[in-house]
Amino acid sequence: MSIRIGILTSGGDCPGLNAAIRGVARAAYQTLDAEIVGIRAGYRGLIDGDYQVMQQSQFSGILTMGGTILGTSRTPFRNMRVVEEDNVDKVHAMKMNYRAMRLDCLVTLGGNGTHKTANLLAKEGLNVIGLPKTIDNDIFGTDFTFGFHTAVDIATDVIDRIHTTAASHSRCMVIEIMGNKAGWLTLYAGLAGGADVILLPEIPYDINKVARVIDERARLNKNFTIIAVAEGAITVEEAAMKRKEREAAQKEYEFRHVSQRVAAALERLTGVESRTVIPGHMQRGGSPCAYDRVLSTQFGVHAARLIKEGRFGLTVALKNGTIGENKLSDVAGVPKPVNPEDQVVKAARDINVSFGD
Amino acid sequence: MSIRIGILTSGGDCPGLNAAIRGVARAAYQTLDAEIVGIRAGYRGLIDGDYQVMQQSQFSGILTMGGTILGTSRTPFRNMRVVEEDNVDKVHAMKMNYRAMRLDCLVTLGGNGTHKTANLLAKEGLNVIGLPKTIDNDIFGTDFTFGFHTAVDIATDVIDRIHTTAASHSRCMVIEIMGNKAGWLTLYAGLAGGADVILLPEIPYDINKVARVIDERARLNKNFTIIAVAEGAITVEEAAMKRKEREAAQKEYEFRHVSQRVAAALERLTGVESRTVIPGHMQRGGSPCAYDRVLSTQFGVHAARLIKEGRFGLTVALKNGTIGENKLSDVAGVPKPVNPEDQVVKAARDINVSFGD
Amino acid sequence: MSIRIGILTSGGDCPGLNAAIRGVARAAYQTLDAEIVGIRAGYRGLIDGDYQVMQQSQFSGILTMGGTILGTSRTPFRNMRVVEEDNVDKVHAMKMNYRAMRLDCLVTLGGNGTHKTANLLAKEGLNVIGLPKTIDNDIFGTDFTFGFHTAVDIATDVIDRIHTTAASHSRCMVIEIMGNKAGWLTLYAGLAGGADVILLPEIPYDINKVARVIDERARLNKNFTIIAVAEGAITVEEAAMKRKEREAAQKEYEFRHVSQRVAAALERLTGVESRTVIPGHMQRGGSPCAYDRVLSTQFGVHAARLIKEGRFGLTVALKNGTIGENKLSDVAGVPKPVNPEDQVVKAARDINVSFGD
Amino acid sequence: MSIRIGILTSGGDCPGLNAAIRGVARAAYQTLDAEIVGIRAGYRGLIDGDYQVMQQSQFSGILTMGGTILGTSRTPFRNMRVVEEDNVDKVHAMKMNYRAMRLDCLVTLGGNGTHKTANLLAKEGLNVIGLPKTIDNDIFGTDFTFGFHTAVDIATDVIDRIHTTAASHSRCMVIEIMGNKAGWLTLYAGLAGGADVILLPEIPYDINKVARVIDERARLNKNFTIIAVAEGAITVEEAAMKRKEREAAQKEYEFRHVSQRVAAALERLTGVESRTVIPGHMQRGGSPCAYDRVLSTQFGVHAARLIKEGRFGLTVALKNGTIGENKLSDVAGVPKPVNPEDQVVKAARDINVSFGD
Repeated sequence: MSIRIGILTSGGDCPGLNAAIRGVARAAYQTLDAEIVGIRAGYRGLIDGDYQVMQQSQFSGILTMGGTILGTSRTPFRNMRVVEEDNVDKVHAMKMNYRAMRLDCLVTLGGNGTHKTANLLAKEGLNVIGLPKTIDNDIFGTDFTFGFHTAVDIATDVIDRIHTTAASHSRCMVIEIMGNKAGWLTLYAGLAGGADVILLPEIPYDINKVARVIDERARLNKNFTIIAVAEGAITVEEAAMKRKEREAAQKEYEFRHVSQRVAAALERLTGVESRTVIPGHMQRGGSPCAYDRVLSTQFGVHAARLIKEGRFGLTVALKNGTIGENKLSDVAGVPKPVNPEDQVVKAARDINVSFGD
Repeated sequence: MSIRIGILTSGGDCPGLNAAIRGVARAAYQTLDAEIVGIRAGYRGLIDGDYQVMQQSQFSGILTMGGTILGTSRTPFRNMRVVEEDNVDKVHAMKMNYRAMRLDCLVTLGGNGTHKTANLLAKEGLNVIGLPKTIDNDIFGTDFTFGFHTAVDIATDVIDRIHTTAASHSRCMVIEIMGNKAGWLTLYAGLAGGADVILLPEIPYDINKVARVIDERARLNKNFTIIAVAEGAITVEEAAMKRKEREAAQKEYEFRHVSQRVAAALERLTGVESRTVIPGHMQRGGSPCAYDRVLSTQFGVHAARLIKEGRFGLTVALKNGTIGENKLSDVAGVPKPVNPEDQVVKAARDINVSFGD
Repeated sequence: MSIRIGILTSGGDCPGLNAAIRGVARAAYQTLDAEIVGIRAGYRGLIDGDYQVMQQSQFSGILTMGGTILGTSRTPFRNMRVVEEDNVDKVHAMKMNYRAMRLDCLVTLGGNGTHKTANLLAKEGLNVIGLPKTIDNDIFGTDFTFGFHTAVDIATDVIDRIHTTAASHSRCMVIEIMGNKAGWLTLYAGLAGGADVILLPEIPYDINKVARVIDERARLNKNFTIIAVAEGAITVEEAAMKRKEREAAQKEYEFRHVSQRVAAALERLTGVESRTVIPGHMQRGGSPCAYDRVLSTQFGVHAARLIKEGRFGLTVALKNGTIGENKLSDVAGVPKPVNPEDQVVKAARDINVSFGD
Repeated sequence: MSIRIGILTSGGDCPGLNAAIRGVARAAYQTLDAEIVGIRAGYRGLIDGDYQVMQQSQFSGILTMGGTILGTSRTPFRNMRVVEEDNVDKVHAMKMNYRAMRLDCLVTLGGNGTHKTANLLAKEGLNVIGLPKTIDNDIFGTDFTFGFHTAVDIATDVIDRIHTTAASHSRCMVIEIMGNKAGWLTLYAGLAGGADVILLPEIPYDINKVARVIDERARLNKNFTIIAVAEGAITVEEAAMKRKEREAAQKEYEFRHVSQRVAAALERLTGVESRTVIPGHMQRGGSPCAYDRVLSTQFGVHAARLIKEGRFGLTVALKNGTIGENKLSDVAGVPKPVNPEDQVVKAARDINVSFGD
């Protein structure tokens, strides 16, 4: 008798989702007597019973495609911390539909929110396997998530293009890179793009120290400065505030984008013309890079292997370069911020990149 | 006796400047007994007598490089319309240095401001030839300027990447494309990127009509809308104001970027989540595309031909697909806005792209 | 009553086919009361009556896709010059199916072979409109075909990458670019990529003159040479042969690829290590560049306009930069080789590019 | 007193060399009182005493550049295994020049040949540190070499473009990817590009089994097949021969390229039209990808750290995701072929990719 595998993608879209779906499906068809059930728009489809039994041909030609053929939606719970009545109803609905769809197991592709829900369902007795996707690279227990390296490529290309114009116009250019809580993307793209300053959520910055970098470069006849700033970068002053207090303060800003605040402050402090670039959502769009296609495929295949072995309550991971898995309960809800002592941070410091601290 | 050719690049940087410089130089060395004098940082170098006699090897390997090996600066005059004393002094300085450098002629690469100054110098008796560069494509008398198609490629790539994420999140995405006075770049990139709405400086928009496009698409189950808006796009209301009045009004805006104003208004009118992408200066950076390399080279070579033939006071142009030239006096100060009846606008309208009018 | 429009793509695949199909369809739906009939795999589908009535949604999201959603096949006739019985039968079948499908007109997208057949059908009384696609740019009466500039971009990128390795290894690199009868692609990519030598079918080369370029560069301490050679490039000796004689001779060659013959001869003549790169079919794959998307869309829209105006027996064209049309009978069977006096050839010669002649 | 660091690049060129050089230099200037001596054209410059003391500014702007600013050459020894008189003389010359240049240590960037020579010099008492570069990824003891992921990106892009044309023409496309001894590049690009068959030097193939894949796909109405073949892929029959015997046989082939042999054989066996694409040296050209820029920088910085700590006779490595080092004597001369049990091979097999075995 065939194994019936449900699959869904949840949370923000991300390059490599389709490649990972294809990996699960092709490996399942090849190594198991499998039937794949595509659940639409993330957990919402599981709650509403919105699904279709997939044909093998539906997984053809999707390796290179951005987005997700299954659709996605944000986490189904308004507040994961409080198990309100509403949440209880939703969990119940998901359990009922899991059975109604006659699933033997469920593969969920997503980020931190997705993993929390996956863990919840596993605790309720469903056979769940997670796959870690996000351009933020902030899922605990895996070297890299898929989608991350594609986003690094895109953000690096932006910085590359800015270099020419920065140099010829003697400007300070501030490039705002995605990442509200984790600065991995800004760190890697900043280093790859040759940024002079990298500002991360994990390392609060002093704007005066950033201004000093510009002044110092001017003294060395370097007429331009490139600053890579994460969306969630904060000043030393903001870091001292409580979260709510900080968020309230930020709402009052004239400029909603951190890059605009940084540029305005630097122009005031140094007198150097400062401009912003905000590539925004283009960082999560388009075809996955080769690295992410290989990683997504390996992750998908590994999920199929775990299913074959009857091992559930796990999430697939790259651990010191080797594909493996972690317990969902060990990963769900655990953040993975940039460690200020991380080897990439230290390499950047050694070549005189400033973190504004 | 050899011909001594001065060359300078002026105004905003632009892909293809180095390719055009190389075209002038290689053709001059090949077809004339030429010596090339590189003037630094645009007209400023001519005013200050800052130059070097170039070696042939300095033009090797620059075909693919962004920026300009000669450096650039903005137009040397604070106000071109009034010939103030300061201007007179600068023009005098340029004439003196032209002679001090023993130039037989001067090739100036730049946009509208550059052409005005070139025309001024030509009237003063200098042998001047212009080359039309700008990503805005707004120089009168040429089918295309070099730099334009590269910028179209970059902006189109941004829109491409946005499509995936717009679709998967059911959003309205507003992409702000360079172009304060002319909308060519937004028009071409918008059409190439499959934008649903294109907003140009030349065609004032009614935000309610834009909102209606979103509603109409929703009715057809199209859950996302892509809007390409030029930096200088204006509403019907703004178009009715005088320029100074409008600029004063725009300074008061909470949002400095037009895309932010458009997105905020649409979110209010339609209830659809709306986000902005502001690629900014990345649109003028990096290596020129193949089209621009060919065009820049042809332009540069044609300048050398005009020099050989002793024809000056001209600017090189692509006229109905053929390389030719125009009189500087016919081009200087003449804008080239998008004609609302342009064939590309009409093609866009025929496939149901809205211009918000 | 609605107009019923048949559409087919024929000949080799080419970037921009889907963009042009979309242009026809969206403009027809928007400006006419149209119904679109998609004919499968080119004329073969017309002969076999293999078609489907398209839904409007099938034209969504195809602007950026390579290939053709309708499928393609080579020209249906073994020998277009002789109207054999077989041909007569096929033409008869196409006329019958045109009526059976209740078409009001037929839009054919293709190259020279496609246009010949389109003209044949027009003579038989069908309402036919052609659209000129090919990466070879060799269709008479249009400035450019769509697909050409995308292929130029790809081939230029190949040459760019080769530069680094050529320089660091002091090699002669021979890059073979598509184009059996017409050298446009090699000419543009060669010039854009900074090739030192460009060998075209239209300008027979003398291998000794090519060798002399390598020697001359060595004298100037330029340690590498880049040669762009069209698939169909021929030597002066081959040019003197009759076609059959030449083809027989070429079959005997140890090396089937012209680049391999050139590289082997140059290594023998100069002693400089010579290597080949044969990118082949990658030059016709992938998403169309922005230029081709705009051009394809304009072409498609113009076809819809001609339908609206009831004008047939025409093929759409870009004429001196303006979208227009030519008579099918004026275009069918007329080649468009590179004129050795073409402005791009002359520009290349002026910057010291050798054509080996 | 300052530390004097010699640096050279040796062997085939590779993306990331300049990024790594910059990493060494910037970290050395930043963390040590260093002087950098650039040795020209690899070991040849050490033998001939061809070098220059570098200025700090020479390391600016090179992060993104392909090739190497120092130049390169192949390994200086005709036969590393036999220490002939000629070799002895060369080693002696290198030692003498190391002293004449007053070097405190020498950093060598290269592949397997470079590491052998580095080890030889270390045994002679010089302070040597190696950096592992190669697109082949075949250096023992490091997860990845720099240059590899860039080459994977390029080769994957080639396969992507081929997909469209393969599908529309119902062809078998054979793409020949660099790698004579190691198949890593073909393995990763093949998997990332969605190849149906991957042929590697490490897994001898049976052409009949490859033909069967094509037949099997035809049965499933998949009208095209993509084959990624490494330059050094061999048949089961060739694998049974001795190396010299095999090389003699291969010289006799009508087709010098393995892809041409494979395509011809498959066309004969299956009747399906088969074509080759040979991207060749474009796989090692151009700007390094973001991954390689980060890795190269980390490697360069780590070399500076080892110098600071006075630790020599080592080569930098990525070990299970962490930057570290190995003994030169443990790495030199040790190959790193693809293990047929490698996790990527197994993932590929699980999604039904054939290795022809």
